[in-house]
Amino acid sequence: MRAMGSHRRTIWPAGDGAAVEVIDQRVLPHDWRTLALRSADDAVVAIRDMVVRGAPLIGVTAAYGIALQACADAGDAALRRAAQALIAARPTAVNLAWAVDRALRTLMPLAPADRAEAAWALAGAMADEDVAVNRAIGRHGLSLLQAVAARRGGRVDLLTHCNAGWLATVDWGTALAPVYAAQAEGIEVHVWVDETRPRNQGASLTAWELAQQGVAHTVIADNAGGHLMQHGRVDLVVVGTDRVGARGDVCNKIGTYLKALAARDNGIPFHVAMPLSTLDLSIGDALAEIPIEERAAREQTHVVGRAADGSLVEVQLVPDGSPAANPAFDVTPARLVSGLITEHGCVPAEEGALRALAARAAAGGAPR
Amino acid sequence: MRAMGSHRRTIWPAGDGAAVEVIDQRVLPHDWRTLALRSADDAVVAIRDMVVRGAPLIGVTAAYGIALQACADAGDAALRRAAQALIAARPTAVNLAWAVDRALRTLMPLAPADRAEAAWALAGAMADEDVAVNRAIGRHGLSLLQAVAARRGGRVDLLTHCNAGWLATVDWGTALAPVYAAQAEGIEVHVWVDETRPRNQGASLTAWELAQQGVAHTVIADNAGGHLMQHGRVDLVVVGTDRVGARGDVCNKIGTYLKALAARDNGIPFHVAMPLSTLDLSIGDALAEIPIEERAAREQTHVVGRAADGSLVEVQLVPDGSPAANPAFDVTPARLVSGLITEHGCVPAEEGALRALAARAAAGGAPR
Repeated sequence: MRAMGSHRRTIWPAGDGAAVEVIDQRVLPHDWRTLALRSADDAVVAIRDMVVRGAPLIGVTAAYGIALQACADAGDAALRRAAQALIAARPTAVNLAWAVDRALRTLMPLAPADRAEAAWALAGAMADEDVAVNRAIGRHGLSLLQAVAARRGGRVDLLTHCNAGWLATVDWGTALAPVYAAQAEGIEVHVWVDETRPRNQGASLTAWELAQQGVAHTVIADNAGGHLMQHGRVDLVVVGTDRVGARGDVCNKIGTYLKALAARDNGIPFHVAMPLSTLDLSIGDALAEIPIEERAAREQTHVVGRAADGSLVEVQLVPDGSPAANPAFDVTPARLVSGLITEHGCVPAEEGALRALAARAAAGGAPR
Repeated sequence: MRAMGSHRRTIWPAGDGAAVEVIDQRVLPHDWRTLALRSADDAVVAIRDMVVRGAPLIGVTAAYGIALQACADAGDAALRRAAQALIAARPTAVNLAWAVDRALRTLMPLAPADRAEAAWALAGAMADEDVAVNRAIGRHGLSLLQAVAARRGGRVDLLTHCNAGWLATVDWGTALAPVYAAQAEGIEVHVWVDETRPRNQGASLTAWELAQQGVAHTVIADNAGGHLMQHGRVDLVVVGTDRVGARGDVCNKIGTYLKALAARDNGIPFHVAMPLSTLDLSIGDALAEIPIEERAAREQTHVVGRAADGSLVEVQLVPDGSPAANPAFDVTPARLVSGLITEHGCVPAEEGALRALAARAAAGGAPR
């Protein structure tokens, strides 16, 4: 998508063929910086320090990390060491381990001399796959927005939580892919952007990428969505997900559940953009079975922003000694989910439909 | 309640008899300062600049402002000018106009020479009345916490939103009065404190006053409450209110409605501490009739906190040019409210019960 006036992905091979470049997401939205990753170690640091974030983007970054390692030393031991370090960079990211394992499975059978070229090709293919998946989600989600626009004279007010935009992926995003698709179709789409405390991914990343792309949006407190829905100012909610259980329960950023409740109470559709890779059929009772990451209290007690002099400053919000809790995700029960937007089409949040979809995808392959 | 090691109210006459002192709530929780108000103008500024906030405290501050004016010049014109300035200091605060009108009605029939003494007496009486109302709310709400404690081996986990504690009143608070009453009874009470974006009254004021009083508490993102309820970590929700309509609909800080939805979805009681002064029987359909104040976007786009060097710094959270909306209140429909805790006892959120209560109070008078 567009950033700083030109079209970009969040990760791309550098011109010299010896590095991969990424957008430094730590300094957004107040600063713009790209970083060149020149080794697997650089990729580890970029993932660990959240220079890059979002499950799809982390996975692709790790695949490029393996490619960088293969250029330096493509021996079995070196590749395995790099793989371990990459997986350990964000231990809870399922997608990361999956991407690294896939790279190893592809490379290990090859002669070491052939591995570097194959690793670059694989990382590029994985990046392209992610883009294809997200474009397909955008295409399928577009029909939901078109239906609203037809009813509302070409206008759609959509609410989203957290950042499931192109910054979380290689391009297009998941929850925001239908928004960008609608924009391309000339639909007048406006996004209510939940701030998404405590890490503020909405206020910083979602607002920034929508602004870069020229999509109308308004940042709101996480508290405000219910009130806006009560007053008819939200046509539909679309969010991303980190993991969907077999019954269609949706694990996503903390606070998603509250918006789903408000949508239900006001008769507003609540949709989840779900790449098939986030469907976990091994999960039955998601509320009981999905472990919820408890992150550092400091993310809640302190916040970083831009001071009047332009510098980034961390300030403390709570009294000294007041403890804070920081559960990072919650589970929205399937009964509150109007539908799941996948790269293979929209499906209800029901076990039968999800198992059938998974089987069809396993048999068929590429996104429609 | 206790603050900085000794028992205080939020407002008290100064020793010299020529001023009233208040806690400067703008610098909480990072600093402690009291301010002496020596004129009606000082009271206007204190109300306007939110040195004092919370409807009950604003009303009492205005009554003291009239008393300060009566000491300087108790003539009709001077008192009316002061009254107008006080009411204009926070134009949407219904309670403020009510307090000022009451003072004028009491003073105007008196000879100017008698007005200063009467005005001081009235302001003191209004402060005492507020304390009595809140103590009664605490006593009535205590029974709810005792019932939970009896079931849970002496422990209660309560969630609250915003600050309806003693800092919003003269003493005790409304929503937190039952907490302090439970603490006095030896109940092991722990409060989940919603941060309450965008003004962070929970993270700053509620956390601070609970810490000062030695009540166990944990600050959480406004996003977290639903998740905690799903996992059985909240026994009941108690919030304050700015205005309750005749049907029992509750207008309170933005985000209250989302917590009420989550409480209902998880079978958790949701109670509202309601001084009878906030009941507005002229309101029928609260969602349609109560105007919701839209506050400055800057409250959402920027935040003030304490930097590492101890100074208070304002930082910007959103990208330059991203608009923000800041609705300050929402309406929780009566169907989601388990009960209203008033100074006259607990009542259901139903029109018949509320009209009967109002009639009984008009006939009877003082809190039970």
